[in-house]
Amino acid sequence: MELTVYLAGQIHDDWRKTLKAKASDQNLPIHFVGPMENHNRSDNIGEEILGEQPNAIYKDEVASQMNNLRTRVLMVKSDIVIALFGEKYKQWNSAADAASAIAWNKPLILIRPKELHHPLKELSEKAQVTVETVDQALQALSYIFDEN
Amino acid sequence: MELTVYLAGQIHDDWRKTLKAKASDQNLPIHFVGPMENHNRSDNIGEEILGEQPNAIYKDEVASQMNNLRTRVLMVKSDIVIALFGEKYKQWNSAADAASAIAWNKPLILIRPKELHHPLKELSEKAQVTVETVDQALQALSYIFDEN
Amino acid sequence: MELTVYLAGQIHDDWRKTLKAKASDQNLPIHFVGPMENHNRSDNIGEEILGEQPNAIYKDEVASQMNNLRTRVLMVKSDIVIALFGEKYKQWNSAADAASAIAWNKPLILIRPKELHHPLKELSEKAQVTVETVDQALQALSYIFDEN
Amino acid sequence: MELTVYLAGQIHDDWRKTLKAKASDQNLPIHFVGPMENHNRSDNIGEEILGEQPNAIYKDEVASQMNNLRTRVLMVKSDIVIALFGEKYKQWNSAADAASAIAWNKPLILIRPKELHHPLKELSEKAQVTVETVDQALQALSYIFDEN
Amino acid sequence: MELTVYLAGQIHDDWRKTLKAKASDQNLPIHFVGPMENHNRSDNIGEEILGEQPNAIYKDEVASQMNNLRTRVLMVKSDIVIALFGEKYKQWNSAADAASAIAWNKPLILIRPKELHHPLKELSEKAQVTVETVDQALQALSYIFDEN
Amino acid sequence: MELTVYLAGQIHDDWRKTLKAKASDQNLPIHFVGPMENHNRSDNIGEEILGEQPNAIYKDEVASQMNNLRTRVLMVKSDIVIALFGEKYKQWNSAADAASAIAWNKPLILIRPKELHHPLKELSEKAQVTVETVDQALQALSYIFDEN
Amino acid sequence: MELTVYLAGQIHDDWRKTLKAKASDQNLPIHFVGPMENHNRSDNIGEEILGEQPNAIYKDEVASQMNNLRTRVLMVKSDIVIALFGEKYKQWNSAADAASAIAWNKPLILIRPKELHHPLKELSEKAQVTVETVDQALQALSYIFDEN
Amino acid sequence: MELTVYLAGQIHDDWRKTLKAKASDQNLPIHFVGPMENHNRSDNIGEEILGEQPNAIYKDEVASQMNNLRTRVLMVKSDIVIALFGEKYKQWNSAADAASAIAWNKPLILIRPKELHHPLKELSEKAQVTVETVDQALQALSYIFDEN
Repeated sequence: MELTVYLAGQIHDDWRKTLKAKASDQNLPIHFVGPMENHNRSDNIGEEILGEQPNAIYKDEVASQMNNLRTRVLMVKSDIVIALFGEKYKQWNSAADAASAIAWNKPLILIRPKELHHPLKELSEKAQVTVETVDQALQALSYIFDEN
Repeated sequence: MELTVYLAGQIHDDWRKTLKAKASDQNLPIHFVGPMENHNRSDNIGEEILGEQPNAIYKDEVASQMNNLRTRVLMVKSDIVIALFGEKYKQWNSAADAASAIAWNKPLILIRPKELHHPLKELSEKAQVTVETVDQALQALSYIFDEN
Repeated sequence: MELTVYLAGQIHDDWRKTLKAKASDQNLPIHFVGPMENHNRSDNIGEEILGEQPNAIYKDEVASQMNNLRTRVLMVKSDIVIALFGEKYKQWNSAADAASAIAWNKPLILIRPKELHHPLKELSEKAQVTVETVDQALQALSYIFDEN
Repeated sequence: MELTVYLAGQIHDDWRKTLKAKASDQNLPIHFVGPMENHNRSDNIGEEILGEQPNAIYKDEVASQMNNLRTRVLMVKSDIVIALFGEKYKQWNSAADAASAIAWNKPLILIRPKELHHPLKELSEKAQVTVETVDQALQALSYIFDEN
Repeated sequence: MELTVYLAGQIHDDWRKTLKAKASDQNLPIHFVGPMENHNRSDNIGEEILGEQPNAIYKDEVASQMNNLRTRVLMVKSDIVIALFGEKYKQWNSAADAASAIAWNKPLILIRPKELHHPLKELSEKAQVTVETVDQALQALSYIFDEN
Repeated sequence: MELTVYLAGQIHDDWRKTLKAKASDQNLPIHFVGPMENHNRSDNIGEEILGEQPNAIYKDEVASQMNNLRTRVLMVKSDIVIALFGEKYKQWNSAADAASAIAWNKPLILIRPKELHHPLKELSEKAQVTVETVDQALQALSYIFDEN
Repeated sequence: MELTVYLAGQIHDDWRKTLKAKASDQNLPIHFVGPMENHNRSDNIGEEILGEQPNAIYKDEVASQMNNLRTRVLMVKSDIVIALFGEKYKQWNSAADAASAIAWNKPLILIRPKELHHPLKELSEKAQVTVETVDQALQALSYIFDEN
Repeated sequence: MELTVYLAGQIHDDWRKTLKAKASDQNLPIHFVGPMENHNRSDNIGEEILGEQPNAIYKDEVASQMNNLRTRVLMVKSDIVIALFGEKYKQWNSAADAASAIAWNKPLILIRPKELHHPLKELSEKAQVTVETVDQALQALSYIFDEN
């Protein structure tokens, strides 16, 4: 049995790369998917495909069409969603992805530093699992396959 | 036909009171519901019911159980969800409520000042309607009942 | 038991008024809902609420947000959807509303002149009932309540 | 991860062949499915299997049973639906397939020439992505797999 | 709390009338609905509305469209479905209605004489309750409201 | 807005009566439903309706058909499920009703004495709210309606 | 793309064997599943596993548990359901399986001799396709894969 | 066709090992999954991943998050759920897992010694199949694949 895990949340450091490398070291049968991590391309993808838009709002609208297509297709294919929140980037988008996962009945593993417990309390209560580090999230994934 | 509308989003000014008063002035057949607007009580409701908890994280956990019970019961009963985002309070919780509404197939009316278009672009693309003011949201609601 | 019936399809003549009057004459316990029938207002409702848009495509986009909000809220509330197609106005929009109704498991009563049978054949096959006149649609509705 | 994409819409030119060839050139892991593209056979398939019918309406009814079986089985298997609308053939059937996809929660990529924006405005608003050319649709598909 | 109960099954004697009268005598808060019990009208309703059809098969097809519209609308509104099978009329239609109820997650009360236990064994196993008489079915309904 | 609350769990004391009386004192707009509380009748209801069965297992089978009919009809109608577990009666049936509520997306309020936390830990984690007393459950219900 | 097809209906001749052989001759990528075709074993499977039961009704009950387990598991895995009705064996069970398939949104291909059109009219109206012979059903399946 | 079967219920003897070995001897195409069978690790997994918690209740809460993650992911992947109840360990948790399976429309095979028929009567009535031994459960599984 192989699981597919969607990695939502901030795209400003390489936590996804770290997580994938460690999962691979442990030979976990997990296939990871996620959003476009190149922030500039993610912001410009609408105009890249459709050409210049009349203003910044419509530039964002068409970029979001493309990014939401990607998120939606990949999240629907996933068995578990992990969302990481960091101190610096308080993205609404990450919270929305996490809540979509929950509402679609995908178990959510929420990663957040202890300092963020208050603003994320409702999301944490709805998550299946809340942890503080990428390593702990990996342990939770690994536990699904452990035999004893 | 009467509609039930859940008012999600920031609880730091009285936008809900304004919206309800104007809807009432227009005799719209709409019943509004929403979260606890007394911020202190919302933060303390877990300990109010269950007594003191061992630390701040567990205090938040039990408060969120109560607040999420309320949100869940009332949102399931609603036909439409309105979520208002303001400049000051960048709550993940509001984004999560908005995304839950969408994932549960409730049409979302997103209210946000133009200045916030970039951080809310993905949510806006998924919303049924995006407007900038409470009055515009009311016009959208009113249009559902208009005869010509 | 009262039923709610959504009246989809062309908005260029007063077939809805006729149907409602006849249902009322027969005292059928049916509540009818439907789209905005004022064609101009329906086309302009986006700019009426949100102000002028940068071009005709975006004017249409915002108008559709408002019209789709109305259709979605009212169709979800309905037990049956009737869609009328006429010779003159070959609206894709009517076909889309009819297909949404079917996919949401709402029984569809399709009204179309015999001459249109070929272009509407797939929709007709998916409809619960296909008739040629408004009076026949009313007979089908009435039959639900008949005692013998 | 391989995706299945249903190609709905007009069957009067070879846009499907073009799209498949280009996707294959880019080694995209996509499996394309779609309707019977031989228009005559599609119109006659009911009588081909069941023999002559009493009139043209019933000939269409049995053909639609077979075509709708195919569409339904293949669309349910698909992760994404693309629908192309052209100037010449204003098929209600394409609009119905597009709306079914949306109502079944399949993300829709709508391809239409700019000139058709007005009659397709409601469908466009409900689509996940709206583009003007087959190449743009392919870019949107490709973006799902891009790493940066 | 009022319940709606759909009375499926044979239409060749007046078991529905008996059941309704007894429920009314006991003041049970139950609203009963069901198919057209006038057998001739049920067979002819398609041609009554749509005019003469080319042959007996198509006469049946259009009658079934009308009867299935009625069944579907009323069964969706019901909380419980009762299906009665008798010795004489081994209707596939009753079995189909009973199975639809089960598949739509409506609890089924199956009424059948003991002699029919073998041909109805699979349906009985899937039913929520199997009884032999109309009175027993009424007792099962009544038990839902009993206080002790 | 009125809520319906199903009271699952042990039937060996009068906790339901207490809860209802207190809710009534506070004028909460809540309608309570629940299982047959007369334990003997609940055990014998199958034979009461269907007559003597061949052995104790089949006596239980037919009683459960009737009790499960009641639970299922009433729980589907409910907005919230409360389940109370006590020291003495470790009924699997209560755990099953609680889990059904969760799986049907009904928010569960779990009431259990602190001493039972270990055997109920998985159920508690899945519940929306876990409390220790009937009064605390009532406070959680009441909070849904509180204005400040 | 491979399809799974469940073969419901009478088990008194070898129509399944015929259909499978012809599908195999045409290299159709279809995997067929279906009920136990050994009639005696199907009737006795409950007692075979659980030992002698107190009477014929309970023998049937336990046999049906096993047969319904098989049907349910295999039908859920299927993309299409074919149900064949013959002159001799008017099984309610086949009608129930056909209706379950429809209610679970599996497209149904109904095979019945012309003579049975009247008793099967409602089921036929709900089926995706109605044909008279096994060969015609195979043509309908084959058409799903045809390229022109 | 391969089936996935989740083995719920007591973890205090090696019934899972026995069942798997026998299924393997018979070459049944079944993949078995289940909970962590190391009882100590299952109780401590929360603190193993997240560190020491403030008290026993919160230790249980975090352990349950991890165990429920595992159960949920694996049960969603399963076609059938088997739950075994034994004399000694009357776990509410097993009853909850069994009820979740039923509410998620997974067929349940319930294994329980005859002596436990009374406390498990409601669950047994809702199960697809009830047997007394692991061997009988295996026979029921095997019957799904039998050709005659």
